[in-house]
Amino acid sequence: MDSSDQSMNELERSGAKSFFETAPPLKNSDLISDKLKEFVRRNSESATPRSIVCVTSGGTTVPLEQRCVRYIDNFSSGYRGAASTEYFVKVGYAVIFVHRRGSYQPYCRYLPEDSFLDFVQLDEESNIQVPEDRAAMVKKSIREYHKAVGEGLLLKLPFTTIFEYLQILQLVATSINCFGCHSMFYLAAAVSDFYVPWESMAEHKIQSASGPLDMRLNQVPKMLSVLRKEWAPAAFCVSFKLETDPDILIQKADAALKRYGMNVVAANLLANYKEEVVVVTSNGKTIVRRNSKDDDLEEQLVALLSKTHSEYIQLVAL
Amino acid sequence: MDSSDQSMNELERSGAKSFFETAPPLKNSDLISDKLKEFVRRNSESATPRSIVCVTSGGTTVPLEQRCVRYIDNFSSGYRGAASTEYFVKVGYAVIFVHRRGSYQPYCRYLPEDSFLDFVQLDEESNIQVPEDRAAMVKKSIREYHKAVGEGLLLKLPFTTIFEYLQILQLVATSINCFGCHSMFYLAAAVSDFYVPWESMAEHKIQSASGPLDMRLNQVPKMLSVLRKEWAPAAFCVSFKLETDPDILIQKADAALKRYGMNVVAANLLANYKEEVVVVTSNGKTIVRRNSKDDDLEEQLVALLSKTHSEYIQLVAL
Repeated sequence: MDSSDQSMNELERSGAKSFFETAPPLKNSDLISDKLKEFVRRNSESATPRSIVCVTSGGTTVPLEQRCVRYIDNFSSGYRGAASTEYFVKVGYAVIFVHRRGSYQPYCRYLPEDSFLDFVQLDEESNIQVPEDRAAMVKKSIREYHKAVGEGLLLKLPFTTIFEYLQILQLVATSINCFGCHSMFYLAAAVSDFYVPWESMAEHKIQSASGPLDMRLNQVPKMLSVLRKEWAPAAFCVSFKLETDPDILIQKADAALKRYGMNVVAANLLANYKEEVVVVTSNGKTIVRRNSKDDDLEEQLVALLSKTHSEYIQLVAL
Repeated sequence: MDSSDQSMNELERSGAKSFFETAPPLKNSDLISDKLKEFVRRNSESATPRSIVCVTSGGTTVPLEQRCVRYIDNFSSGYRGAASTEYFVKVGYAVIFVHRRGSYQPYCRYLPEDSFLDFVQLDEESNIQVPEDRAAMVKKSIREYHKAVGEGLLLKLPFTTIFEYLQILQLVATSINCFGCHSMFYLAAAVSDFYVPWESMAEHKIQSASGPLDMRLNQVPKMLSVLRKEWAPAAFCVSFKLETDPDILIQKADAALKRYGMNVVAANLLANYKEEVVVVTSNGKTIVRRNSKDDDLEEQLVALLSKTHSEYIQLVAL
């Protein structure tokens, strides 16, 4: 990484500044700050030194109208983030799960898509039952979820819009700054590249009376730079690249690694992102594949990242 | 309604035709047709003559890329459709619930937004428990849901895109045509007004390398006309108008009533749609307000519509 990558581009800095200045204020920001403070306090006081990871998950939306009826959304079920959260807890991290409302949640990824009612029955004594073949799994999940929350290892913070997402990410980054190199960002959320600045947005619903609709969307400032260089300079940063075109994937992952000073870029294709991810670092590329359809790719990915993070911590300590 | 409203505009007809011809084919259309056939068979054989309603619910999406990473979405939690479905079952309708994947579902509207795990515990014998103050409600819901499904009164069909939504609506309309005036359409879904025709869509993810993004969206053909005039001419049709600007709401509802030959247009404002809806018919306007915060507006709305539908059936029978 040369010095021109390290120094933050003035355009990026001013773009970020103006994005935050014109964004609608984050609701409940005091409550979120309080939760973060409590979570950080609990995990920095723990007897064994603990690493902390901020997992972002799901897609952000871009409102097209101030009183939001229509918005542009980025596809992401949030499965990767939810699964990874479970494995990070399992290997000993405290996890801040910054997720899109309604996306997959850790410890209940097996739920049928529509309704938990398809999944439960009442027996003759009016006790709630799940089908016998799934009972063990469901009970294990309930147990593990409440254990993670009870031990203070899991904090869930929801977002919907790109404005909320970036404001919460900033709050998290500054809150966990005290963990230094023991903190990780695992940026699996699908973040909008384009948005409509709040001030130039239509106040009311766009009317469909006549003809086609022309829209101009601005680029969202590249917040990875800001995160890396201003909010969390000591953290271990993992970002994700999702593309549909295999011909440009690795090239774009390499570019992101250099441009934003990421420690790792995890590169995947929409066509096979559940089977394979390429872990790109400045030392080379490692392909992570899941063993079988019943396995989670995320288990191996988290194991590899946790090891790479430990090596990074040792390197920084030297 | 004069004859110029009745006859279908040639532009609308050709717009609808070309929309369907260029849409990506509906996945599982055979399976959906089979489910519909079975549902219709069961409910037309029932001893008491039964009315049938197709409730549409949630927002449709408009893909911006063929391998969909980004899409435009219409805001709708689907709460109204889910609540209305319960009340339609309660007053004796068979309900086809055509809903956006992941939107609110009937009989579990009380669930916390994030995860059912926050809602259940294991007791000492590893039985699944819900908090005592909510147990009665949860058990009632489980019971009512399985009763509705078991008695063949509820069929759930999910959609995501505008293409899926309109193709499913067409399948439903032609399937329940045999119910004639005993069928109702309760079109509470938030349907996109604009879309990108499949053929002109980018195949790969739109790249964000340089500058702003300009987009041109076409108008979705007015399918209410096609539903009314071609697919289901004898059905009782209720459509919804949601606006943010109170100054144009009633005027737009009146226009929709006339233009599409709806029997009822339910008009609401985004600011207070849970408290108040104006039921607009050719005979006048009725304001429906919920009695208290603990009540569902939908209970009164469904009661009023069911009564109006009965009057319509009697009128047709004369």
